[in-house]
Amino acid sequence: MNLILLFQEDFISETRVRLQGRRLKHVLEVHRAVVGDELGVGMVNGLMGTGTVSCLDRSALEMDVRLERKPPVPLPVTLMLALPRPKVFRRVLRAATVMGVKRIFLVNAFRVEKSYWQSPFLEPDAIRQQLVLGLEQARDTVLPEVLLRPLFKPFVEDELPGLIAGTIALVAHPAAGDPAPRDVNSRVTLAVGPEGGFIPYELEALSAAGFKPVSFGERILNVETAVPALLSRLW
Amino acid sequence: MNLILLFQEDFISETRVRLQGRRLKHVLEVHRAVVGDELGVGMVNGLMGTGTVSCLDRSALEMDVRLERKPPVPLPVTLMLALPRPKVFRRVLRAATVMGVKRIFLVNAFRVEKSYWQSPFLEPDAIRQQLVLGLEQARDTVLPEVLLRPLFKPFVEDELPGLIAGTIALVAHPAAGDPAPRDVNSRVTLAVGPEGGFIPYELEALSAAGFKPVSFGERILNVETAVPALLSRLW
Repeated sequence: MNLILLFQEDFISETRVRLQGRRLKHVLEVHRAVVGDELGVGMVNGLMGTGTVSCLDRSALEMDVRLERKPPVPLPVTLMLALPRPKVFRRVLRAATVMGVKRIFLVNAFRVEKSYWQSPFLEPDAIRQQLVLGLEQARDTVLPEVLLRPLFKPFVEDELPGLIAGTIALVAHPAAGDPAPRDVNSRVTLAVGPEGGFIPYELEALSAAGFKPVSFGERILNVETAVPALLSRLW
Repeated sequence: MNLILLFQEDFISETRVRLQGRRLKHVLEVHRAVVGDELGVGMVNGLMGTGTVSCLDRSALEMDVRLERKPPVPLPVTLMLALPRPKVFRRVLRAATVMGVKRIFLVNAFRVEKSYWQSPFLEPDAIRQQLVLGLEQARDTVLPEVLLRPLFKPFVEDELPGLIAGTIALVAHPAAGDPAPRDVNSRVTLAVGPEGGFIPYELEALSAAGFKPVSFGERILNVETAVPALLSRLW
């Protein structure tokens, strides 16, 4: 937790917050803070700054906060991920948040197992938990938007053309002839398939929508590795 | 499993392998192969090619293999990782293998909990298992070398200077002023600290040994994300 993310309901006065639960535990056990210490804080979807510990015991942490710095600039990317299996999904969501992605579409694909769509990890609160962990790690405040699209065809045909307008649209595909570009100076829409990849029909639909298949060299990366590796190369 | 990694003991004749256990299960349940199918195979630390399924039932898979292609070129990097907590360690090891790293030093640091060094995941067989999974994912055959260095000071003072000779030595450090370089045309030694980072003494020792601190923008990446993100940017 490199930043303690604050929410409206944490404020007990205009500049003082009172925290319990997970964040209190972390400050006690990991930061091992004492009264007077300054901790990095940030208001969700708002400014970052410092919190000065004013009271701290096993029951609560109170801090006086000053919020004065803007959060880091978002990555200019929309990530379109074939829904990974639930455990991987949570880690990829966190990794994408850590990297600075602010819009993530989770889409269906032929090789996405139907059961994945029933996972409790897809509940809004479970998703939000991973996003918060990612922001706390990265030192950022802006919650990504996560959108579920359990039907591939209508999403690709009806919604995607509008989404990719004005962006470079890339689909990660190990068999592609062209390598993923570097240092693009543009907004990007990046599609990453399921384990085993998109099937030919899906790749054709994405190509028809304007996506260019790109590879990451000879190696086939798993989704968890591909997301940070590709994003890092693009900017 | 994008490649079935083969070992000397799998061969029942010069060109025929017989597999049971995990690989058999995967071929039955994921590849759903039948006799006559061709599967991607590779000899550990050797060539890659195809295996033609000659017998397949619940008890064993036999394939006739042709090995004819070189594995992908290794990344010209030595990775020096402060030992992460065991669960993260396994994933980072796999990610580094997937990316093409062939030499990984696991070193101690002040913020590495002592208990991590007792983890069963550090047993040679447990490490090897993650490396094999990484190679099978990436479609590579060359096992990385993983070296444990539970004492920071003698490693940095005695061994590191020789290791980094002729390489660009970088230490990932979120507070560094310089960003991680892109597209270096050189061998690199990349040091990645523990959660919470290297302490000032460690950073000084690494600087004295020739390491340059570099950051990854304003965000602080977790180790799992930092490794693929940094490697991907370097080449």
